[in-house]
Amino acid sequence: MTDFAATKAMFDLPEGVIYLDGNSLGPLPSAAKDRVANMMTEEWGKMLITGWNKAGWMQKSTAVGNRIARLIGAEEDHVIMGDTLSIKVYQAVASALEMNPSRKVVLSDNGNFPSDLYIVQGLLKSLGAEYELRVVDPEVVAENITDDVAVLMLTEVDYRTGRKHDMKTLTAKAHEAGALTVWDLAHSAGALPVDLAGCKADFAVGCTYKYLNSGPGGPAFIYVAPRHAEVARPALSGWLGHEAPFAFELDYRPGRGIERMRVGTPPVIQLTSLEAAMDIWDQVDMQDLRAKSIELCDLFIAEVEAACPELELASPRDGDQRGSQVSFRFREGYAAMQALIERGVIGDFRAPDIMRFGFTPLYIDADDVRAAVAIVKDVMTNDLWDNDAYKQRAAVT
Amino acid sequence: MTDFAATKAMFDLPEGVIYLDGNSLGPLPSAAKDRVANMMTEEWGKMLITGWNKAGWMQKSTAVGNRIARLIGAEEDHVIMGDTLSIKVYQAVASALEMNPSRKVVLSDNGNFPSDLYIVQGLLKSLGAEYELRVVDPEVVAENITDDVAVLMLTEVDYRTGRKHDMKTLTAKAHEAGALTVWDLAHSAGALPVDLAGCKADFAVGCTYKYLNSGPGGPAFIYVAPRHAEVARPALSGWLGHEAPFAFELDYRPGRGIERMRVGTPPVIQLTSLEAAMDIWDQVDMQDLRAKSIELCDLFIAEVEAACPELELASPRDGDQRGSQVSFRFREGYAAMQALIERGVIGDFRAPDIMRFGFTPLYIDADDVRAAVAIVKDVMTNDLWDNDAYKQRAAVT
Repeated sequence: MTDFAATKAMFDLPEGVIYLDGNSLGPLPSAAKDRVANMMTEEWGKMLITGWNKAGWMQKSTAVGNRIARLIGAEEDHVIMGDTLSIKVYQAVASALEMNPSRKVVLSDNGNFPSDLYIVQGLLKSLGAEYELRVVDPEVVAENITDDVAVLMLTEVDYRTGRKHDMKTLTAKAHEAGALTVWDLAHSAGALPVDLAGCKADFAVGCTYKYLNSGPGGPAFIYVAPRHAEVARPALSGWLGHEAPFAFELDYRPGRGIERMRVGTPPVIQLTSLEAAMDIWDQVDMQDLRAKSIELCDLFIAEVEAACPELELASPRDGDQRGSQVSFRFREGYAAMQALIERGVIGDFRAPDIMRFGFTPLYIDADDVRAAVAIVKDVMTNDLWDNDAYKQRAAVT
Repeated sequence: MTDFAATKAMFDLPEGVIYLDGNSLGPLPSAAKDRVANMMTEEWGKMLITGWNKAGWMQKSTAVGNRIARLIGAEEDHVIMGDTLSIKVYQAVASALEMNPSRKVVLSDNGNFPSDLYIVQGLLKSLGAEYELRVVDPEVVAENITDDVAVLMLTEVDYRTGRKHDMKTLTAKAHEAGALTVWDLAHSAGALPVDLAGCKADFAVGCTYKYLNSGPGGPAFIYVAPRHAEVARPALSGWLGHEAPFAFELDYRPGRGIERMRVGTPPVIQLTSLEAAMDIWDQVDMQDLRAKSIELCDLFIAEVEAACPELELASPRDGDQRGSQVSFRFREGYAAMQALIERGVIGDFRAPDIMRFGFTPLYIDADDVRAAVAIVKDVMTNDLWDNDAYKQRAAVT
């Protein structure tokens, strides 16, 4: 059994704060600052350029990728770190489109994180007018996987409501229809068990600064299924994805397997911070995490609904249909969230009316949930109407 | 006058090392580790998600860009940080090509850093078979700027020999011929004064982990000339380049000016390390730096040529034609460089026979140069023939 009291003790959490926004930016692992300081002074400071080999900087992108692979059900040596999630989306969709050249449609849904849609819009504009991004409601994705779809690109867990797509079913349906899949795991990696290999996903991407706790701007990851790894052409063909980067040849030759998805020089300081976070993850069983996450979310829903009838559940009630967050709709949600933050309960707000709370068993427990609900109730009963954000809004409307 | 003794005192340099590889990875600014530790504990640790506003994380990409702008002669608010240099090359060339749609040729030279060529090869393959990357010798670039060239993409300073292109003349010639320019400043930014505005450069890109000393994997920068800034379409259209990222709209609208060249979440930890390095740069006059750099390079050339007739100068003898590095050709250069590194003189080797030495007035002075030459002489006279790398090679050939 995962010892979540032990993992909680491995984070520096500020006094008086109940942090329910780890789905946006995870908190600081206690060990991270010393790990980074050590990397800076003992490796960069003392080894200088030789750190690339001596300190293993060049291998970090694959070494860390393999530690994340376990959390998302990926095969060994098929996940690599680097860049940002948006860049990794571009790489994945560009490669997938080329592998399905007779088709020109990318299918996605309007619950996807906007950056994924923007990136594909930019890519398709470069590729030509015959390409199309087709965006449908999340509920009707399955029936829209028609035989002109080249790539199905979805974020598994909706960033606003936590609604979870069925990766296995949708991937199978895409394959039946002759489409490839790109799964964005931004709100999945570290939030719930993912089984990329079992689902036969083609490509997957994700970030590390949310549930994985790598710090602001931590590197992203990309997964390419073993059956595609030697086939996919990297559109962003940078030197570290070359078969022999230090031969300094004039022509690009893609590196072996996932290595070709490297682009430029890896962000070693951010990767070091991520390594400290992965030391915590290495102690976590994902099934335990999932059970605890559902328990915390269910508790929050039950207690909020009992205490605050004004708040309307925006997330699926069934834990199996949800990621690791709970959202409520409330017309004065912005003001309410400001009031909550002032009281030390940190969630966030997404327009027009979503109050969003992330539950992260690594450092949030049932006592935190109950304490948070007490403050939510108090805010809804007392504080809200005195809140500046509410008064400003009331003055305008 | 810039006080280079003062800047030297602001770096942590290991005892017994003369570091002549700052053109590959700059050393650790003494203040960087505390800056980063403070950012991690006081900002990330305590502010958590609110750090994006409270600690100014979201503005760092432009704030740091403006500090770099001074070093490269860019107009204010036209340089932005993020991603890696290879990604920034992709952005710049993709935008420039679209702004010159009737032409399909990117002209570059075989002295360019391979990643730039690789990235363009990848981009052009995505764009279609009608596009061509034309690679010529550096000496004949000017005469090859024909009227079918859409984009002239050059690295100002050759990474192997330090040979410097004439940015002003080549840019003018490109413009006369109807081409746009993309200048890679990897070996220029922090190495010599650059005058992007005065040269009327269109796009420029560069990295920060070499002469600017941001640490391994520090973020890159991109410059877009003011006249293009509202025109250039970002091919990598990520959410932070959107006009209103936090409106979470479904369709991409490019942000204002250089802001649209943002892609994903900025690497705040690496940017913080870069800020510590920029505190040193803020004290440096680029004309002083250039004078000192040429003086150090000239001294090294003169002393090495006097002491080691086996070493053949591979860099331009005229300081005005050079960046801030000096290279010598030597058949046993690999073994010689290994021997030098063992003796604490850190330069590097580029196949087949280039021994490369970077001169960085911020932390290298004339005494260091003389001490380095004494060791070079000693290695060439005594150590080399006992060196493992030499003996292995001798055993094979």
